[in-house]
Amino acid sequence: MRLAVTMGDTAGIGPEILVKAWRQMQGSRVAYGDLDTLTAAADRWAPDLTVSLDGPENQANWMRVERTRPFSGSLGQVSASAGVSSFDSLALAVDHALAGQVQGVVTAPINKAAWAQAGIEYPGHTEYLAERAECPVAMVLANDDLAVILATVHCSMLEAVEQIRAGAVAQVLPHAWQAALELGFESPRIAVAGLNPHAGEGGLFGQEEIEHIIPAIQSFGRAEVSGPYLGDTIFMRARAGEFDLVVAMTHDQGLIPVKYLGVENGVNFTAGLPVVRTSPDHGTAVEIAGQGVADERAMLYAYQQARQILNRRSASA
Amino acid sequence: MRLAVTMGDTAGIGPEILVKAWRQMQGSRVAYGDLDTLTAAADRWAPDLTVSLDGPENQANWMRVERTRPFSGSLGQVSASAGVSSFDSLALAVDHALAGQVQGVVTAPINKAAWAQAGIEYPGHTEYLAERAECPVAMVLANDDLAVILATVHCSMLEAVEQIRAGAVAQVLPHAWQAALELGFESPRIAVAGLNPHAGEGGLFGQEEIEHIIPAIQSFGRAEVSGPYLGDTIFMRARAGEFDLVVAMTHDQGLIPVKYLGVENGVNFTAGLPVVRTSPDHGTAVEIAGQGVADERAMLYAYQQARQILNRRSASA
Repeated sequence: MRLAVTMGDTAGIGPEILVKAWRQMQGSRVAYGDLDTLTAAADRWAPDLTVSLDGPENQANWMRVERTRPFSGSLGQVSASAGVSSFDSLALAVDHALAGQVQGVVTAPINKAAWAQAGIEYPGHTEYLAERAECPVAMVLANDDLAVILATVHCSMLEAVEQIRAGAVAQVLPHAWQAALELGFESPRIAVAGLNPHAGEGGLFGQEEIEHIIPAIQSFGRAEVSGPYLGDTIFMRARAGEFDLVVAMTHDQGLIPVKYLGVENGVNFTAGLPVVRTSPDHGTAVEIAGQGVADERAMLYAYQQARQILNRRSASA
Repeated sequence: MRLAVTMGDTAGIGPEILVKAWRQMQGSRVAYGDLDTLTAAADRWAPDLTVSLDGPENQANWMRVERTRPFSGSLGQVSASAGVSSFDSLALAVDHALAGQVQGVVTAPINKAAWAQAGIEYPGHTEYLAERAECPVAMVLANDDLAVILATVHCSMLEAVEQIRAGAVAQVLPHAWQAALELGFESPRIAVAGLNPHAGEGGLFGQEEIEHIIPAIQSFGRAEVSGPYLGDTIFMRARAGEFDLVVAMTHDQGLIPVKYLGVENGVNFTAGLPVVRTSPDHGTAVEIAGQGVADERAMLYAYQQARQILNRRSASA
């Protein structure tokens, strides 16, 4: 089972965390990115690593690269060129994944501004993957304390309310169930958050719980999926061990608690795709690019999670 | 300087945490609640404490009580009688505060369902206090890691968006400034959160940041107040020490991170009142009432915070 690992935004910390984490990644994997940038990064931060267009894929000290269009910008500076090469690395990895040449994709962070400068209009990895795979997906965020899946993601608060009224909770629950299994919870306890304060306080603070969230939970019809619970305590309760996965109604509702203790071991997992896809739960950190201080742990954690999910999928297939 | 300490919901853990915390409370304080319930609670959980309608107010082992209408319900059962006596204790404490007989009020948690059964229609302490004091107030939540003030509180998500469009951020910023000073930050660094994911992503995910939140921050005109910052990382950054106080746009946005690590040392502080008012950041826990296992630390912390705020107010007056 081969994994594609993309370099992410070429001007950010992606190349650095990739070469640093590479030697600790177990199993067969291929890097997708600009060859010169990766070679230079290895020279600086992983001098015993050989970076090459061919060679072994499962050795600690060898990085085989699928190359993108060359990068002509500078480390630490947002540029169209960085956007082009980071998008190339993703697009090529997805080509290979959809063709069955790799079974999973681990993506380093991209910079939306660089993509925009390059004329690439996707809000992020998840939306691009959903379009390429032609299937509905959902974003899962997890770390050692908490796992969250989002019913709505990159839209305004008003649009999120509209999406919930249009059935977003019913759509996300099957993804939640499958994702919880793939994250290793054999009999998952899934808790659905309310949208409004106090989960609507019986209709006093909004009708979405009564009209949409409760019916979606009932219609899904598994005793292991319950709610809606008060948004302000559901994550505390999940962290304390009462629930395995929380279905959050909005982007910030779910990401605030996942990120609160730090993003060193946070992973972003796209549920619903035919291939496994994970990503570290942090940004491109262009402000520290080139300094050698970037922390590769979340990148390594995302890789390890992808391999575990892949193993669980193949075990249950 | 005297503090009023209310018993909260008579059927919940209020009486227990009150008698347990009482002996550790420094300074002059008076309990407000049902005399028989407090006497029985002291017999069970603080046997060396004398509960009386008169006597000293600043001794560890003596609790002077301002009594309410008698409680006729049972511990652990939500009832109208519990609502009546908890509301009485609050109303009497506020009477005395507005008359200048006490300088602050520390409130144990109330049960909204019990209030409703008793025909009392306030959503909570804060709304009652705002009405009695006839002034705009704001809710502050704080613990050792994080301090948050809420621009909107007990309303639906749609209503929260409407309130932000109607000026809620401009209204809360003076409270934020004053609250940060009273919480002990001499030159407070106040960070304002976005309402929408990615703080609106430059207008792509909502216009409230551009049309309302940024103008409110600019109009407030203090360099120490900045934003809007991304909602999903602002609390992580504040916890790491970058900001002293976060202005949250909604109830759950602010309370999720405050409660995430537990509510043992969380305090709720009402900014904008002429008297100091604090409360522990947990509920009435009727399900464990009477078992002797309730944790009084948050109640004691709320009391200590009230006294510190009072000291800072009098020092700056």
